[in-house]
Amino acid sequence: MSEKNFHQHQHDISSAVINRLPRYYRYLRDLLDSGVQRINSAELSRIMGVTASQIRQDFNCFGGFGQQGYGYNIANLYENIGELLGVREGNTAIIVGCGNLGRALAPSRVFSKRGVTLEALFDISPHIVGGSCGGLVVKDMSELESYCNSYKPKIAVLCVPRFAAEETARRLVDAGIVGIWNFTNVEFTKEELGVPVENVHLGDTLMTLCYSLREEKEEEEKNA
Amino acid sequence: MSEKNFHQHQHDISSAVINRLPRYYRYLRDLLDSGVQRINSAELSRIMGVTASQIRQDFNCFGGFGQQGYGYNIANLYENIGELLGVREGNTAIIVGCGNLGRALAPSRVFSKRGVTLEALFDISPHIVGGSCGGLVVKDMSELESYCNSYKPKIAVLCVPRFAAEETARRLVDAGIVGIWNFTNVEFTKEELGVPVENVHLGDTLMTLCYSLREEKEEEEKNA
Repeated sequence: MSEKNFHQHQHDISSAVINRLPRYYRYLRDLLDSGVQRINSAELSRIMGVTASQIRQDFNCFGGFGQQGYGYNIANLYENIGELLGVREGNTAIIVGCGNLGRALAPSRVFSKRGVTLEALFDISPHIVGGSCGGLVVKDMSELESYCNSYKPKIAVLCVPRFAAEETARRLVDAGIVGIWNFTNVEFTKEELGVPVENVHLGDTLMTLCYSLREEKEEEEKNA
Repeated sequence: MSEKNFHQHQHDISSAVINRLPRYYRYLRDLLDSGVQRINSAELSRIMGVTASQIRQDFNCFGGFGQQGYGYNIANLYENIGELLGVREGNTAIIVGCGNLGRALAPSRVFSKRGVTLEALFDISPHIVGGSCGGLVVKDMSELESYCNSYKPKIAVLCVPRFAAEETARRLVDAGIVGIWNFTNVEFTKEELGVPVENVHLGDTLMTLCYSLREEKEEEEKNA
């Protein structure tokens, strides 16, 4: 697909499709890593547990057309989804709040795998500031504004305690941060903060799991 | 609502509703913590950014009926959703793999807030086994089967490296684990493992955020 076609197709994509793309991106990377070069929608459907027609519809949204009889070129598709999702934008990030979760995220590959460079860590505690994590030295929050002014990081990973969430989020936006990956359990919206936010709620999936366990147990009791 | 009505209503709830319940649960807890006792669907709609009719439909699914002119009794609703989601089942959990993420989860309140008791940690590395985290001593994986046999933990939080994911997941199910909270980035299904699984993919929301950043940038460039 030409660059021109790609850009013609990439607008007006529904948020439902956008939310499904990271999962395709993961599966396509696994296929590439296994040395697979082409795949048709039926085979991808089998692997991913999504209908083939859903896959075709989703990929058509951004002009990811398979060739009749040949299927999809995985490398191209991976590249196009990556471009669409901003993997090649050279995004930079800082972690704000280096408690257990911040320190777990800092050395992880979650950033680099998506084209994001983690550049700095911040905390307020004298016990944590000056220590190192994931190859970076934790800076004091008092340096936040001057750091952002000099280096213009794009994304802040918000890992502060709940009570400090709102104040810190607003301070980050004032300092020029343009996107917040929010782990505080306080939900923010783009309308409130003026920049895109993704709220992560780890506990929600634990609750869904507990629901399934209860359902299974009742099913067993019924059949006993 | 009587116990009988509650149990009559709680079956046949769509997974879409179930997946929305943990978010209601969080908001209701915040309201309770703020001392609010009643709320109508219009007000909850404003706070949560969901339509009032969606809220009424969702709550009706499990018999959470508001009273005309009085709205919902928050404590009751919180209790009912909690029961439906298995918060009162006395679930127990173990963390398997005590790298950065496992060690971040161990001391967090993510378990206790949902009625789950974290009871043991396991790892394979001699550098990690014997150390303590979140008040628990990390056990060697060789003790897994005998531990499960004695204590019958329900949930395993799977935080092992990707290459060990499948083998470890099957070993946990063989040892009697009945639900897996999976952080390995390898997707499992209930069909494959024979027990309910929730797959967590932190990186997916980072990608969605990067997409929003790219969209914002293009919007600005267009308006410049």
